[in-house]
Amino acid sequence: MKPGEERHRFRKEEKTGSTSGLCEKYVQTNLVTLPKEYAFDFLLFCIRNPKPCPLVEVLEAGKTVPEIADADVRTDLPRYRIYRNGEFSEEVLNLTDVWKDDFVTFLIGCSFTFETALVEGGIPMLHQEQEKVVPMYKTNIPLEKAGLFEGDMVVSMRAIPNNLMDAALEISEQFGQAHGSPVHAGHPEDIGIADLHKPDYGDSVEFDPASSTPVFWACGVTPQNAALQAKPSIMITHAPGHMLITDQLDPNYDG
Amino acid sequence: MKPGEERHRFRKEEKTGSTSGLCEKYVQTNLVTLPKEYAFDFLLFCIRNPKPCPLVEVLEAGKTVPEIADADVRTDLPRYRIYRNGEFSEEVLNLTDVWKDDFVTFLIGCSFTFETALVEGGIPMLHQEQEKVVPMYKTNIPLEKAGLFEGDMVVSMRAIPNNLMDAALEISEQFGQAHGSPVHAGHPEDIGIADLHKPDYGDSVEFDPASSTPVFWACGVTPQNAALQAKPSIMITHAPGHMLITDQLDPNYDG
Repeated sequence: MKPGEERHRFRKEEKTGSTSGLCEKYVQTNLVTLPKEYAFDFLLFCIRNPKPCPLVEVLEAGKTVPEIADADVRTDLPRYRIYRNGEFSEEVLNLTDVWKDDFVTFLIGCSFTFETALVEGGIPMLHQEQEKVVPMYKTNIPLEKAGLFEGDMVVSMRAIPNNLMDAALEISEQFGQAHGSPVHAGHPEDIGIADLHKPDYGDSVEFDPASSTPVFWACGVTPQNAALQAKPSIMITHAPGHMLITDQLDPNYDG
Repeated sequence: MKPGEERHRFRKEEKTGSTSGLCEKYVQTNLVTLPKEYAFDFLLFCIRNPKPCPLVEVLEAGKTVPEIADADVRTDLPRYRIYRNGEFSEEVLNLTDVWKDDFVTFLIGCSFTFETALVEGGIPMLHQEQEKVVPMYKTNIPLEKAGLFEGDMVVSMRAIPNNLMDAALEISEQFGQAHGSPVHAGHPEDIGIADLHKPDYGDSVEFDPASSTPVFWACGVTPQNAALQAKPSIMITHAPGHMLITDQLDPNYDG
């Protein structure tokens, strides 16, 4: 199905599941919506931390239809999360009831697109094979503070067969709007991860450390994490894995 | 003299002239200061229009010392202009009296650095030879709107000898934080410039059209122009030609 067809089903709430594996090769994005009073600080935070927060598009207050998708950000994602004063409040299927005209929306790159390219490059995605959510970890890699927003980077981990390391780096670094090249490989303890079997988000994934190396990419959960520490009165995000599917083919596939 | 020494003289108001030709090879920047209520829109405007508005650094509200220079932006430029409600109000030597804690400052790349590189590349800068301010023109090249801010691009013109065109393009495109490669060459009427002898800012510069081509670069006056159209209650800029001299060697010279 085309992105528009999938989004139509989300809008009608006929389909409410993860967008993982849907419309592969089309850019999918994380969503962060904040009242305008927080928008300057958060925009500056994204600019200062482009690896975890690659900006795909910013919708000014009052705008609900992005350039990158013929979609309404209030209804066309399958599932949203609402946080109030830095704490999870509720999960909803649309934002019709909570939307205010001063809300600013940030669309931030996501790793789904580069995973497709890695698989096409012959690199196994073990979490997909094991039917798990990619494991994510809080690290000690500090972010550049911007106004209210600060914190450490969150990373996702994919174990890469040692003989395919170069290919994985080469493929992922082409996806600058989807976190790009890894931030670390090999030594989780160096970036403050004590136990790979205990991810902070997602699931633990099994791999053979003799033949594979754990590789860490900056993760789109980072801005949510930083935003929650800033305790905005309200913040809305996509539910994890339930992204905005855009109409844009990733430039690496397009043409 | 080193940047710190020049800035010390500006601070003491012992020297109040243009920074053109001072501390060559050090990055100089345009300055735009706005109250925080306009900061999100203006930041987004810069991001959407990186050719005329290449962001070098943003200082959040309350910050007066940038990372890029051991300087106080309120005192360490030779001369400032203050605009109120979109109209020029006064020119001052420091901002001590008008400064407020909610002011956000944007440092934006400037063409002084790449001019040095062009001269070193054997390309004559006719406005320098004729002791004039580089001619600048309003164009019909539309900018991407962001909130309150919109308008057309302002460009600067340098006539380049035809046999040095490739070199000029090659050199300037390396200066991504100083407007980079030209936006147009050859046909001023195509970008809405009726008469090269009547610049909107700066001075008319003589050149031989048989042996040289007029080349147009995006210009740091653009954001000022757009900001004035938005009529903010107050906006402060450097006085034209009176830039912030930073402590950073341009990466193209550094090392």
